[in-house]
Amino acid sequence: MTTEITTDLTEAVVDSFEGTPDPRLRELLGSLTRHLHAFVRETEPTMAEWERAIDFLTATGQTCTDTRQEFVLLSDVLGVSMLVETINGDRGGDATESTVLGPFHMTESPARALGADIDLVGSGEPCVVSGRVLSRDGTPLPGAVLDVWQANAEGYYDVQQPEVQPAGNGRGLFTADDEGRFWFRTCVPSPYPIPTDGPVGDLLRATARESYRPAHIHFIVSAEGHAPVTTHIFVAGSDHLDSDAVFAVKKSLVQDFTETDDPVLAREFGIPNPFRHARFDLVLNTLDPNTLDPNTLDSERP
Amino acid sequence: MTTEITTDLTEAVVDSFEGTPDPRLRELLGSLTRHLHAFVRETEPTMAEWERAIDFLTATGQTCTDTRQEFVLLSDVLGVSMLVETINGDRGGDATESTVLGPFHMTESPARALGADIDLVGSGEPCVVSGRVLSRDGTPLPGAVLDVWQANAEGYYDVQQPEVQPAGNGRGLFTADDEGRFWFRTCVPSPYPIPTDGPVGDLLRATARESYRPAHIHFIVSAEGHAPVTTHIFVAGSDHLDSDAVFAVKKSLVQDFTETDDPVLAREFGIPNPFRHARFDLVLNTLDPNTLDPNTLDSERP
Ligand SMILES: [Fe+2]
Ligand SMILES: [Fe+2]
Repeated sequence: MTTEITTDLTEAVVDSFEGTPDPRLRELLGSLTRHLHAFVRETEPTMAEWERAIDFLTATGQTCTDTRQEFVLLSDVLGVSMLVETINGDRGGDATESTVLGPFHMTESPARALGADIDLVGSGEPCVVSGRVLSRDGTPLPGAVLDVWQANAEGYYDVQQPEVQPAGNGRGLFTADDEGRFWFRTCVPSPYPIPTDGPVGDLLRATARESYRPAHIHFIVSAEGHAPVTTHIFVAGSDHLDSDAVFAVKKSLVQDFTETDDPVLAREFGIPNPFRHARFDLVLNTLDPNTLDPNTLDSERP
Repeated sequence: MTTEITTDLTEAVVDSFEGTPDPRLRELLGSLTRHLHAFVRETEPTMAEWERAIDFLTATGQTCTDTRQEFVLLSDVLGVSMLVETINGDRGGDATESTVLGPFHMTESPARALGADIDLVGSGEPCVVSGRVLSRDGTPLPGAVLDVWQANAEGYYDVQQPEVQPAGNGRGLFTADDEGRFWFRTCVPSPYPIPTDGPVGDLLRATARESYRPAHIHFIVSAEGHAPVTTHIFVAGSDHLDSDAVFAVKKSLVQDFTETDDPVLAREFGIPNPFRHARFDLVLNTLDPNTLDPNTLDSERP
């Protein structure tokens, strides 16, 4: 191989995208071509390695179903999801930090009243999650919407166990009250391995990598005039906080699920005393009307 | 986003592969991570763009079947296949240059006797393809195997038209004779568009790119003690020689399909006179026994 040939080839591919009407798509494909070719030139894959990569990508696509997204999982374990989320989500200041969407935001969360229990089968350790949705200046955001989803106490999402869990178990769409407050009941989530029965699992095994994620609850929080945030709350003290398979832990997102012995509060929440209680505020950035955020909870989400 | 965060994240992902037992896999994944993250950092995709990319890759995988390989096609139109093939195939000197495998080497070519007609339906302009398989020092290679496949005169491979073309149409596995000679009958191939009814077609349309390939016949030529070559012969004068959708044209691979008026030769080949005749030698590099080539016609090929 001569360097000239490969350089010419890369430029020929970049040039082939020159007529792309959308300038952003042209930019993305030009950059993709240069970085992808740089990877190939650096590693000089054999034909057998290239074929293995084609097979792996094909199997990853074919593992996807209505309730499973193996390419999101691949993006997650390569840290790409976290990188994209970090680029988009973190606008500095003291707003709640973002983290990855993950592959299990597959179905619509059912709308539930504040205080409802999302642990429909009552199998785990009962807890209350409560707090306020605020703007960065501390103003409560009444009507803020919280899309919440989590695995059960055994570490599985409803879509992974359609025969065991009712649809919507561990999920809820809550609307904050007039003072921006939210509260709901659930079970304390458990650490869980990401699905390892597909190509991404093969990758983790071949690289002797950890498949576990620390215990967490997912949130997408949105409110009028504010940038929505896609994030998790991690359970303080959970195993795997230092070795999350998808690189999604941020210190500010770790919250205590405090053992609480308070019969009055228990009665108020309608939960047996004592109980675990996670209490935190979710803080949103104001949407700058001059730079309207394209990352709304858009209808394009699969 | 701070540069520190993204740099740390990239290094965390690279580090996660440190325990990979196979050093080559560790090298490939470390390099992939760095280049993929560099692409993301350079282009700062929005969440909607990331989701579009996930959808595109998923659809590409789900378009693959036993007779269709959309990820090979994607690799082809991004110039990655040609880059990998060039890195592996070209060892300099005057050996036949390599080019891409392409997505249509899906089925086994049927073994055929020298002189057989691979145009089973006789629809195109009849021609003879003949020549010798040689080592670089000019020694003929008796018993060399030529795996040949091409589109019909309308530009379709057998696997694309299972209801119109018999399986194996346009394909043949030939063994060179005692003097390293090969000859077979076929029709002159036509330029054809790569399949545009899948995600790769969407990509070509969105980028206003050409979907046509110049007329060609595919070859994989192998012989004992020699490095096999995966290549095409392009028809001189064909349209699209300067705008191949998959960047696979090399000047040395363009051959005349000469109008031939030679009743004696026609009788020898058992073909009506006059006929088109492509004549060329295929030249293989010797396998260096100290650096045994891993790119044999291995059983791993899908
Ligand atoms: Fe999760
Ligand atoms: Fe072809």
